[in-house]
Amino acid sequence: MKIAGISGSLRAHSMHRGILRTVAGHLTKLDIEFVEVDISEFPLYDQDLNAKGIPRAVQKAHDQLQSADAIVLASPEYNYSISGVLKNAIDWFSRVEDQAFNGKAVSIMGASPGMGTARSQYHLRQILVFMNAFVVNKPEVMIAQAADKFDKEGNLTDQRTIDFLERALSSLISLSKQLKS
Amino acid sequence: MKIAGISGSLRAHSMHRGILRTVAGHLTKLDIEFVEVDISEFPLYDQDLNAKGIPRAVQKAHDQLQSADAIVLASPEYNYSISGVLKNAIDWFSRVEDQAFNGKAVSIMGASPGMGTARSQYHLRQILVFMNAFVVNKPEVMIAQAADKFDKEGNLTDQRTIDFLERALSSLISLSKQLKS
Amino acid sequence: MKIAGISGSLRAHSMHRGILRTVAGHLTKLDIEFVEVDISEFPLYDQDLNAKGIPRAVQKAHDQLQSADAIVLASPEYNYSISGVLKNAIDWFSRVEDQAFNGKAVSIMGASPGMGTARSQYHLRQILVFMNAFVVNKPEVMIAQAADKFDKEGNLTDQRTIDFLERALSSLISLSKQLKS
Amino acid sequence: MKIAGISGSLRAHSMHRGILRTVAGHLTKLDIEFVEVDISEFPLYDQDLNAKGIPRAVQKAHDQLQSADAIVLASPEYNYSISGVLKNAIDWFSRVEDQAFNGKAVSIMGASPGMGTARSQYHLRQILVFMNAFVVNKPEVMIAQAADKFDKEGNLTDQRTIDFLERALSSLISLSKQLKS
Repeated sequence: MKIAGISGSLRAHSMHRGILRTVAGHLTKLDIEFVEVDISEFPLYDQDLNAKGIPRAVQKAHDQLQSADAIVLASPEYNYSISGVLKNAIDWFSRVEDQAFNGKAVSIMGASPGMGTARSQYHLRQILVFMNAFVVNKPEVMIAQAADKFDKEGNLTDQRTIDFLERALSSLISLSKQLKS
Repeated sequence: MKIAGISGSLRAHSMHRGILRTVAGHLTKLDIEFVEVDISEFPLYDQDLNAKGIPRAVQKAHDQLQSADAIVLASPEYNYSISGVLKNAIDWFSRVEDQAFNGKAVSIMGASPGMGTARSQYHLRQILVFMNAFVVNKPEVMIAQAADKFDKEGNLTDQRTIDFLERALSSLISLSKQLKS
Repeated sequence: MKIAGISGSLRAHSMHRGILRTVAGHLTKLDIEFVEVDISEFPLYDQDLNAKGIPRAVQKAHDQLQSADAIVLASPEYNYSISGVLKNAIDWFSRVEDQAFNGKAVSIMGASPGMGTARSQYHLRQILVFMNAFVVNKPEVMIAQAADKFDKEGNLTDQRTIDFLERALSSLISLSKQLKS
Repeated sequence: MKIAGISGSLRAHSMHRGILRTVAGHLTKLDIEFVEVDISEFPLYDQDLNAKGIPRAVQKAHDQLQSADAIVLASPEYNYSISGVLKNAIDWFSRVEDQAFNGKAVSIMGASPGMGTARSQYHLRQILVFMNAFVVNKPEVMIAQAADKFDKEGNLTDQRTIDFLERALSSLISLSKQLKS
């Protein structure tokens, strides 16, 4: 089994990249391969550019997603929706043949000082209807009051939250297995 | 009075840029200044980059928005939401002091082969709650079956739709005046 | 296998009850049992009333849902969301132990003169996250320009749409089997 | 000036009715009339019933809304959306001529043990687009951890929250004045 993860935040000490590190660490213990998909070099989506082909960075990222059995999307909430960076990546992915999200299980994970990205996650769920992905319902991963749970490098340090992420990954793995049956 | 417009699509022959040309043409007749705000040179939002200052292209665009009395957002629907390009622009705008959307009237306009971007417009409305903008309710501009209404250069050629856009602009102007009272 | 259906419209000649009749007819051919769940006698949800117990009509409907393997929700769109009647029924269902939606596959079906209830279906999807149900992504059943496709008694008469509903049921059955594996 | 309020919860000791009592108390000090609109006796919406006329309870409630300058909607969040009770009321209101919400300012207020009804409020905002109402953006009233802020009779006792509601009412009154100009 293989799981791919994307962070909707690009900064070095992003909490969402920290979430993916926790995810990676736990999956290693379960003997599941994890790959973090890099979307930081994608150009802004432009149909004229697309007409010239899929950019190399997009193709590489898409191939990684495509080869995964399930996907973790960790995005900050900016302005009550997902980051433009993540949306831009999805806009590119949707233009590649052999859709990488099609039929796969997805876990959405978010952290914020307030409600833990609750407002944005339903936007992402709507987007994923189009991509024909199935999102884990329980548990929803909305890490509230995040400042107390991550260190300055964006590492998740709160043990209860780490345990919670592990349960969320169990749900993702179960759903993925069901969808592949 | 001055109105600014943003296209969520970057391609040269975009229908949404065509919508803005129709908007511009009508506003000229009404003696209202119109400026199309260019978001094509924005970098992907990155907090580390932001820490170094607001990029020049963002600042210029924001200044244009800031000086406008009302705003037209013309965005395609990609994957059931607004374009990542537009969301990325909004993410940058929200980091500039003296918020350009604050308290202003906004008209959302979209065109698509299907439902005219209906699914994405409520996402944009939610985003604009955070920005404290007020969106025109009637009419909603969802140009369905758009292929028949635009030419190959993205010019809006359907007279009924042109008339409809003019009514939408009247609503925008009225709401803007109310909000400034 | 057994499938339960609920109409969010109560009127005798409702198109949504017509959708359920088409569903029932097709499932009979597949040797799958179908039951239409009646929510017309539910009281308005009131926690004080709930404290006295689950009303008989709610309990009966819930038992029917509970015994089904998958669920069809056919609702009109009123005021850009699902009907209050359907929401009221869900509010009651959520108060019964042994949640009837938990882990099940759901197909949402809607018809309207306009966009085929597109705006309301994402509200229903968000509600079903809480209920831990999994909604079919493809195809989405949004029957537009419905007046031409149903007769005055609300019977679905358009053959292409009937065929489409049959494909939607195939998707529902497949997803249900996956989720039970 | 006159403001009408509706509670989406019917129980006697509802926090949302408590919110309306706080609203009423503050408006009295400002010499603004307040009326709580009763929706508890509305039948479930049924177009066949509607064809026989508007029920007396609906007409009375609608007249109260109609005569108000602005509206407060206080609703619990059930299953990630507004209460079916409130949606049912809105479905009835939308069938009365001389739409009571048209062009008016609305303040949405919610309280819950968790996020303060954040998930449901954007559903209500979408519904209010159809009704052509304009919802206050700032502040959003989402009273989180509500159990600590209300007594057992549903009275709002937390002074900071009471002060916050007063600021929210100032915003409502200002927006209402702007929209009437």
